[in-house]
Amino acid sequence: MSSLAPQAPPAPGGPRGLVMARALIPPALRAWIARLDPELAALCCYQLGFDAAGGPRDGGKLLRPALCLLSAAAAGGDPSDAVSACVAVELIHNATLVHDDIMDGDKLRRHRPTAWARFGVPAAILAGDALLALAFETLTEDPHPAAPVTAAELTRTLRVLSSGQERDLRYERLPSITLRQCLSMLEAKSGSLLGFACRAGASYAGAPPEWRGRFSGFGTDLGVAFQLVDDLLGIWGDPRVTGKPAGSDLRARKKSAPVVAALSSGGAAAARLAELYGKRRPLNQRELRVAAKSVEQAGGRDWTLGEIRRRTESALERLEGLDLDHAAHADLRQLAAAAADRAW
Amino acid sequence: MSSLAPQAPPAPGGPRGLVMARALIPPALRAWIARLDPELAALCCYQLGFDAAGGPRDGGKLLRPALCLLSAAAAGGDPSDAVSACVAVELIHNATLVHDDIMDGDKLRRHRPTAWARFGVPAAILAGDALLALAFETLTEDPHPAAPVTAAELTRTLRVLSSGQERDLRYERLPSITLRQCLSMLEAKSGSLLGFACRAGASYAGAPPEWRGRFSGFGTDLGVAFQLVDDLLGIWGDPRVTGKPAGSDLRARKKSAPVVAALSSGGAAAARLAELYGKRRPLNQRELRVAAKSVEQAGGRDWTLGEIRRRTESALERLEGLDLDHAAHADLRQLAAAAADRAW
Repeated sequence: MSSLAPQAPPAPGGPRGLVMARALIPPALRAWIARLDPELAALCCYQLGFDAAGGPRDGGKLLRPALCLLSAAAAGGDPSDAVSACVAVELIHNATLVHDDIMDGDKLRRHRPTAWARFGVPAAILAGDALLALAFETLTEDPHPAAPVTAAELTRTLRVLSSGQERDLRYERLPSITLRQCLSMLEAKSGSLLGFACRAGASYAGAPPEWRGRFSGFGTDLGVAFQLVDDLLGIWGDPRVTGKPAGSDLRARKKSAPVVAALSSGGAAAARLAELYGKRRPLNQRELRVAAKSVEQAGGRDWTLGEIRRRTESALERLEGLDLDHAAHADLRQLAAAAADRAW
Repeated sequence: MSSLAPQAPPAPGGPRGLVMARALIPPALRAWIARLDPELAALCCYQLGFDAAGGPRDGGKLLRPALCLLSAAAAGGDPSDAVSACVAVELIHNATLVHDDIMDGDKLRRHRPTAWARFGVPAAILAGDALLALAFETLTEDPHPAAPVTAAELTRTLRVLSSGQERDLRYERLPSITLRQCLSMLEAKSGSLLGFACRAGASYAGAPPEWRGRFSGFGTDLGVAFQLVDDLLGIWGDPRVTGKPAGSDLRARKKSAPVVAALSSGGAAAARLAELYGKRRPLNQRELRVAAKSVEQAGGRDWTLGEIRRRTESALERLEGLDLDHAAHADLRQLAAAAADRAW
């Protein structure tokens, strides 16, 4: 794909937004999780990588908090004012991961068993609920004047997220879906939370409604691009990087965007892919390789790469013309490029 | 048990709080649920009894909204101001029912399959999340000055609820628990939401903090009493009334309060019950009858009846000495008595 990397050299430790998020957010997340019963807190720490075996990640990628912090800074605010919103978005993100993994039957995440696979379904349902409650609590306890509007925004976002996940589950049972349906679902399921993160940052900076809408659009576009990268990784990602088996999305016959693009292209490769997806038994290794090749030959990979570029460009355009803080705006561009440019 | 019935004759259609709740709350609940995707809304309507086959209940017992409305009136407010809080508490109640039924593996509720048994686990997890989101949305969109503090209170209540459910699940796996553990769990799992409902009513009436604390205590005590009645029904309830199989709690070997009281009494009946609970195979009809008889002989039923009376009296005492609206206070007493006096 065409490089969207910024002119400035990357900061040590990755894009500056992530560095800032890794310094500010994990201590706050830990403090909130400590409010839960020890048993639920242990599951939540596991989910967030805060347990002893969680490795060096210490709280995950923190992309959403990073976007929130940089949006606050870009809109002229002090990022450290927005820590509650960052904690809320990361807690909601993990609540939906815990619940979605149960619904999707996914057993592996980040190189280890998912929360339900490790602690059982009942505990995982409950921990997800507790994380949702905590997320709202960070905002209802925050005395910042932007907290109430952000809490209201979070309720709406959560409703949109559930709508996206509902469609995702339903689409898996349909014989075929259109690219339009697929992208609309991704906007709800993946775009909305990044849109919320960026809008919340702008709100905490005291930005006017028009700015908040633009930051929301920026995050939503970026969220779709980010998910499309995940969709590519779900087919061609290196298991050592993704923490999931090779070709896991094809194995589960997910209707991810590259697959939907390929299936709707017509032609021999699309027909071959449709035939493999229609089989009533698990695909073997050879068939998985044929399926991946068919997605590529039917143009699914190229279409997805193009859409990642279009969404990332659209995201950046949304912020054009605003009188933003220069350094923070550059950091946002850098983070957007890094998110869209992950190795796969 | 000693009658706690009020002097005034009951209003037609049951206690006045329930009559008021049935008039005010179902239309509001329906309007909020209509904000969800049709597929999720259908499941939520089923859960709340709003579907065509839901029967005459039209939204369930609505005990929690009734308590909220009467608390608002008793504290000198206009109950119709508190409709958002009533909707929030009923949505949260149903969200936890949907999720708890999955966790507990319960297949029947209100004479028909539970939501997960009818729509599948993934849809039921998701609908529970959507109901949680909607509950907060009713409060974050409500312009009433009591809405923010009530939303904050709801987040804390949800955290306490999850702690109660966590202990309930964990206690089921322990060989024995104490009555103290059991009651503390019931306060968290069953008392907290009724406490929230009553406190929210007082908040919407503009009551001072001390009053709010007293209403919270009133609801919490009542919630424990209410759950203890359910525990009696779970052993001796008529299936035609409860909508669950006879002796369902004994069949599932639940450590409900009457069982814990019986087991901790010592003596031959307690030993017989412990032996039945220790069996590694399903109990047959004869054994279920012996188990029920053993709970009774070991004093579990009498202890529970006594605790229901103590909690109900304690609840009523909490409101003594406050300058409450007379009629609404009488209605609250009537509702408390009716809730504690359900036929079993």
